Amino acid sequence: MDVNELARQLEQGERRALARAITLVESGRADHRVMAAALLDRLAGLGRQALRIGLSGTPGVGKSTFIEAFGLHLTGQGLRVAVLAVDPSSARSGGSILGDKTRMELLSRDPRAYIRPSPSQAHLGGVARRSRESVALCEAAGFDVVLVETVGVGQSETLVAGMTDLFVLLLAPAGGDELQGVKRGIMEMADLILVNKADGDLKPAAMRTVADYAGALRLLRKRPQDPAGFPRVLPVSAVAGDGIAQAWADMTALADWRRTHGHWARTRAEQARTWFEDEVRQALLARLTEDPALRARMHDTGDAVASGRRSPASAAADILSQL
Amino acid sequence: MDVNELARQLEQGERRALARAITLVESGRADHRVMAAALLDRLAGLGRQALRIGLSGTPGVGKSTFIEAFGLHLTGQGLRVAVLAVDPSSARSGGSILGDKTRMELLSRDPRAYIRPSPSQAHLGGVARRSRESVALCEAAGFDVVLVETVGVGQSETLVAGMTDLFVLLLAPAGGDELQGVKRGIMEMADLILVNKADGDLKPAAMRTVADYAGALRLLRKRPQDPAGFPRVLPVSAVAGDGIAQAWADMTALADWRRTHGHWARTRAEQARTWFEDEVRQALLARLTEDPALRARMHDTGDAVASGRRSPASAAADILSQL
Repeated sequence: MDVNELARQLEQGERRALARAITLVESGRADHRVMAAALLDRLAGLGRQALRIGLSGTPGVGKSTFIEAFGLHLTGQGLRVAVLAVDPSSARSGGSILGDKTRMELLSRDPRAYIRPSPSQAHLGGVARRSRESVALCEAAGFDVVLVETVGVGQSETLVAGMTDLFVLLLAPAGGDELQGVKRGIMEMADLILVNKADGDLKPAAMRTVADYAGALRLLRKRPQDPAGFPRVLPVSAVAGDGIAQAWADMTALADWRRTHGHWARTRAEQARTWFEDEVRQALLARLTEDPALRARMHDTGDAVASGRRSPASAAADILSQL
Repeated sequence: MDVNELARQLEQGERRALARAITLVESGRADHRVMAAALLDRLAGLGRQALRIGLSGTPGVGKSTFIEAFGLHLTGQGLRVAVLAVDPSSARSGGSILGDKTRMELLSRDPRAYIRPSPSQAHLGGVARRSRESVALCEAAGFDVVLVETVGVGQSETLVAGMTDLFVLLLAPAGGDELQGVKRGIMEMADLILVNKADGDLKPAAMRTVADYAGALRLLRKRPQDPAGFPRVLPVSAVAGDGIAQAWADMTALADWRRTHGHWARTRAEQARTWFEDEVRQALLARLTEDPALRARMHDTGDAVASGRRSPASAAADILSQL
């Protein structure tokens, strides 16, 4: 594979080059990692930036329907949209529940849209790294908006928030005045909360849920990266198309404010530094399993520890003194 | 400090030696780590085993009262009991909310009991490692039962379950038929669920909660390490002392069955191997921050990445090639 040629095609927005580049960064092979690093380095020089939007929502809130409606709204304005997924469950299930093109039929056929399913990787850290690099590839390919979707479980929101400029939480209408078990930590990450299914019978419940979350957001402490009125809660109906334009207007207003006030650049710089440190840590740990001789020594020493002949602490010190 | 002398005193069950040894394993100093490894190695040869019990419960379920009643029940039978804590919040709060002796007044004055508060450490991984080593020290000091308590948040249950033979979940009576937001993953770890406060006005609610969880447990898949009837739910009243003897009888029955059927030894061997591998990983990562020259290089390279001049992937590859 010629990395320079791939970079050139990708810069010109060729979809097949983008797909090949994402496959390259998703690969765990050492030679592929070297090529991926060279490609990413070269593309970093372009300085192209998309609006990166993180989107989280538990199954059943209508995430695919929302992405389809939202994505078509953007492409209808001439914007190019990429949809990526960070799917913590794909490691277990082997399959992908996010980013499935069949769930977004119109958007997947739109020439201005690119949908990439979540890679099946061994662990969430690996999925995250590859997703971050895929976001950078989509930016270099000239997409205006990169939407990174995840399902509302565990640490995946934190990972997605760490690779995006805005974080959107999609909810379904809740019964009564209960907050839907959304963890405080996730609420604190959200820039925009969208209550979907604000249509038909569910509309009153959706409006109540909007009011409940607006109240809850007022209790959170003010963040420096928020202008007046943010974080904000809006009702939307992905099926009817209601509220989609308003949601997009809010996102661009927030992004513009953050750009003007220096938060955008600062957040991106911090995120890049975190990726780098994380990459060093992951690669260092990978050495333990990649080298066959070291792997064998880890296994044998582990046997001695498992049998009770050695303490884990001294056995570990032994291994480390040999590294 | 003479490690051999410390080991000798600790083997004889001297409480001050145990306290000093735990302080040693809790230390982050490199020379202390070396001594701790030597001490643990030497004590591993003793082959002493306690029944290690993990206990989790959110604040308000009466954990301290239960530990006091349970611990006194055991010491009353002539058993020696150590109580340790894994407190994920201590890193943040700086203080210890678990293992506070003032919460267990009678037990803390019992000569057969030893209570050690949670260490204040920088991160949960560090707390976990030191707690695992403290468990090994208590075993070597001849305790019959080592109780490791944690609060029901985040990953701390998984860590505690990974260093114990039995995992007990303590709950409060819930209103109606709702399950108390206990995560499925935590339920799946539990060998015994105890519904506390089964006394006075709360007794009917406690019995309903027992029935609810018994139903929920039947839906979980059968684990090979469980005899018939386990995992099990019991009502207890720490205040009245009801159900404590039954809970202990269930724990010993389960432990005996697992010993007889090989699960005990297998689980311990797997846990020891995991500790060892974890210790190697932690120590490897610690090298990144311990060496001043490397730390400076990480910082400078991080600046280049933050400014957008380099991609995280290639910058990380650079650092790694120099290690």
